Amino acid sequence: MNEVVIHLICPDQKGIIARFTNQLYNNKINIISLEQHVESDENIFFMRIHADITNMNLDQNAFSDFINDFKKKLNAQIDYYDYLKPINMAILCTKEEGPVLELILKQKAGKLNCNIPAIISNHESLSDVANRHNIDYYHFPIANDKQNQEEQILNLLHDKKIDLIVLARYMQILSPEFVSKYSNQIINIHHGFLPAFKGSKPYHRAWEKGVKMIGATAHYVTSELDEGPIIEQDVESVTHHFSVNELIETGRDIERKVLLLAVQAHLEHKILIHKKRTIIFH
Amino acid sequence: MNEVVIHLICPDQKGIIARFTNQLYNNKINIISLEQHVESDENIFFMRIHADITNMNLDQNAFSDFINDFKKKLNAQIDYYDYLKPINMAILCTKEEGPVLELILKQKAGKLNCNIPAIISNHESLSDVANRHNIDYYHFPIANDKQNQEEQILNLLHDKKIDLIVLARYMQILSPEFVSKYSNQIINIHHGFLPAFKGSKPYHRAWEKGVKMIGATAHYVTSELDEGPIIEQDVESVTHHFSVNELIETGRDIERKVLLLAVQAHLEHKILIHKKRTIIFH
Amino acid sequence: MNEVVIHLICPDQKGIIARFTNQLYNNKINIISLEQHVESDENIFFMRIHADITNMNLDQNAFSDFINDFKKKLNAQIDYYDYLKPINMAILCTKEEGPVLELILKQKAGKLNCNIPAIISNHESLSDVANRHNIDYYHFPIANDKQNQEEQILNLLHDKKIDLIVLARYMQILSPEFVSKYSNQIINIHHGFLPAFKGSKPYHRAWEKGVKMIGATAHYVTSELDEGPIIEQDVESVTHHFSVNELIETGRDIERKVLLLAVQAHLEHKILIHKKRTIIFH
Amino acid sequence: MNEVVIHLICPDQKGIIARFTNQLYNNKINIISLEQHVESDENIFFMRIHADITNMNLDQNAFSDFINDFKKKLNAQIDYYDYLKPINMAILCTKEEGPVLELILKQKAGKLNCNIPAIISNHESLSDVANRHNIDYYHFPIANDKQNQEEQILNLLHDKKIDLIVLARYMQILSPEFVSKYSNQIINIHHGFLPAFKGSKPYHRAWEKGVKMIGATAHYVTSELDEGPIIEQDVESVTHHFSVNELIETGRDIERKVLLLAVQAHLEHKILIHKKRTIIFH
Repeated sequence: MNEVVIHLICPDQKGIIARFTNQLYNNKINIISLEQHVESDENIFFMRIHADITNMNLDQNAFSDFINDFKKKLNAQIDYYDYLKPINMAILCTKEEGPVLELILKQKAGKLNCNIPAIISNHESLSDVANRHNIDYYHFPIANDKQNQEEQILNLLHDKKIDLIVLARYMQILSPEFVSKYSNQIINIHHGFLPAFKGSKPYHRAWEKGVKMIGATAHYVTSELDEGPIIEQDVESVTHHFSVNELIETGRDIERKVLLLAVQAHLEHKILIHKKRTIIFH
Repeated sequence: MNEVVIHLICPDQKGIIARFTNQLYNNKINIISLEQHVESDENIFFMRIHADITNMNLDQNAFSDFINDFKKKLNAQIDYYDYLKPINMAILCTKEEGPVLELILKQKAGKLNCNIPAIISNHESLSDVANRHNIDYYHFPIANDKQNQEEQILNLLHDKKIDLIVLARYMQILSPEFVSKYSNQIINIHHGFLPAFKGSKPYHRAWEKGVKMIGATAHYVTSELDEGPIIEQDVESVTHHFSVNELIETGRDIERKVLLLAVQAHLEHKILIHKKRTIIFH
Repeated sequence: MNEVVIHLICPDQKGIIARFTNQLYNNKINIISLEQHVESDENIFFMRIHADITNMNLDQNAFSDFINDFKKKLNAQIDYYDYLKPINMAILCTKEEGPVLELILKQKAGKLNCNIPAIISNHESLSDVANRHNIDYYHFPIANDKQNQEEQILNLLHDKKIDLIVLARYMQILSPEFVSKYSNQIINIHHGFLPAFKGSKPYHRAWEKGVKMIGATAHYVTSELDEGPIIEQDVESVTHHFSVNELIETGRDIERKVLLLAVQAHLEHKILIHKKRTIIFH
Repeated sequence: MNEVVIHLICPDQKGIIARFTNQLYNNKINIISLEQHVESDENIFFMRIHADITNMNLDQNAFSDFINDFKKKLNAQIDYYDYLKPINMAILCTKEEGPVLELILKQKAGKLNCNIPAIISNHESLSDVANRHNIDYYHFPIANDKQNQEEQILNLLHDKKIDLIVLARYMQILSPEFVSKYSNQIINIHHGFLPAFKGSKPYHRAWEKGVKMIGATAHYVTSELDEGPIIEQDVESVTHHFSVNELIETGRDIERKVLLLAVQAHLEHKILIHKKRTIIFH
């Protein structure tokens, strides 16, 4: 491990930055970037540090002790990640090619720090896309037994050591059991500007209301449908000239873009989560 | 009347534009601009014509007959408006100065084709702003009798021959009786990106969800709260750095802008309404 | 030919819409949509009509006569296009895959009404992309003789009956002779928000100036470099955190989107050109 | 002084944050927020610290020594500002009311941490606006002697202890001598999306080119016309329907907004300047 990202969340108190960074310095850990934020209503302190540990004078155990020591001192939640190590990411999809292809192409272009050991679907539709890019495609049809299908997926995710699951227009609702196994590790793209138009046929309902903007929202998946922490949102202006299909087309382009940005932020360990909110240090 | 705007809505059928514009031409009515739209799912035809009638060879009655004749021929709803005549617009407000001042200043600058014979409020807070710009200010406190207060307002609107009511952050819900008297003549600015965050404290709820964009919606008022046809929407990006108050501040700037655009579109007779949707010919 | 798009540009005068649409009606040509615009400073009238001619009571010659007749009557420039017939589009590129792939995928998805008989490049880099989608790829290296290379391209364009040339990050400047052969038929995507940052290394220069927005411009190619009529523009906000490479990456995503929108508008015959400006009827 | 903002710019080196913040901590200076940025190409380190010094165990001289000490140690440029102290801001204007009024209203609403001891103009047009809000208005006509007029202004600025000069559509070019006296203390709003359309009549030229977006740029004034460091930019989409006057109207609304954001950022000491770029810590 040469570069580390550290996430720290704790009650606000005096000297956090000074004490923590000074210890990093003493241990020959060099800060590449540091961002912090205080939520003043709740007195919660958030910090992300990206550091070079090439010359660190601690071994892995000592570094772990160092972190644990600060957890106690600051009553903090501290996590750290190997910044350079690609994350194993699985893509779950159904029939829509756009967002899947976008993720594949950006990964190939070196814009996503991840491996893609598996594309998983309840349909065969996208096996071609996977094959064309030499990615393993797993087709788990739902048939009558959704629970069984989820178990197949979970086994595969476990075997492949997956750390991030991207729902790239996967048209199934995951069970609470599934979701709880991958807390804050499942990113969904929502076909609408949340919290508006939750549920089905959002574009039809948007059309009926004559909305003047169409949006999309990427968010973490929690057991509450479409209510997980929002990561990224964007919109485009539309007019009465847009048919439902044109709204959908416009929406899909926004979805593709928003999902990519959300996945990038996650893979670069830029996202801290607190309650139902994300703190994203761009 | 030198310039007229004609709105026509009818079942789609062959030759509407040709037949209608040819009759205009025969009557020496010169088209300044024409926009049309067909909603293909429902086969509804919409048209807005802005025309110069200076040399029209019809008197007022004959023009009226001409319109009525086409209503029958096309099974159409046809309305027409004196394009150059300023509309009498009343502003209803409570305590927030921003959107009221914006409307006053744009009217003074010649950007809004209207008179403002009255600013009406349930509070005294904005009487200074009105006085400073020589606009009559009417303070109707609600006390215990909201019905009575609405009657006072309705009497004033009637006396002043008001054709457009702008709710510039008027923090009261109008009764269905009030609303029904001014169908499609009341414009509200909603402190949120509808249909999300209806109801109270939208910015607090937006903050709690950690939204990444804040928006505002101008819409016509119907008896269904916050559900009337949308006229204009806009958004701005926000981050976790924004406090609730900063979200509110950002929102207010968007509200001010969106309300202005909606009022401008209405005053220039650019808006046709069909079911719950607006067709806006920009 | 079942559907036609007619472009009409003429000095503004009374009764243009009425007279023209009435004749369409008399000839059983049914208007699907009509947009018009008057440039009041110059008194120029612009109109685009999309019409269904399935039941037209004119044969091809008579229709042509009808158009010619109006050209004289109105002192007009009138062009018409077969709306449903796919245009033959050639893509010229160098090494960048993004915009080429976007055009291919959108065409395959039925969002671009065109054939792509040829992808042409001065490099071999993108032959794989073409092959994968069964599109013929022509590699014309420049070597020492640019004039000869252009002749090879021109011959191919002629053989393939190409009507639209899209420069999808083709890093060569076309000669005035080449450009004059395809007037208003060559669309370029410019890596910058024109008219700023013309010429080379625009992102480096944008970075040095610390711009807060990055944009892209799609435009028709004329003999004046980067000065042809603008079709579409868009921007994204950036900050000082963006390196030159990140500006480039951001810019490329905008370029890809802007180019697609410009090509779509052209293929649907939505663009009229007058002097150095485009009139685009969306 | 209870709260301080510290700006630090220096060659990148190990331990800057640790060493500096540790010394703050030792001196009982409590960090409210810290942002940093490294320009990797040039190895320049930028930091802004907003700190509470209520309990600081240094007096003013000792604090000054502390800063000087670090200047030497880090070979740094360090500036510090009293965060809570309102800055004396002068507005220079000509005839356009919009941006002047916006600044006044936002200041009155407590959104700008400044006093406005003077509004200065070469015309009398806006004296009413100033009077209405009880701000002193100084009319210095240019007559034939621009140098003399600038001297009158400079004397007034000196007398009023002005620290920030906002050119709110002041239609005169300041002399290099004037500008050099207020380096990085003069903010201008440019009627165009720099670096495009420098010079006169930008909207006419934008119209002639048929641009699809209109923008505005707020920047610091340097002796190179319209070339100073960019602070804030924004754009709006426009179409061929916009006349030159409508482009101007649209542009002015953007200018008003962009200027306000730039002034806010300056007053909150969020802007560091390096070469021709701004580093803005939002």
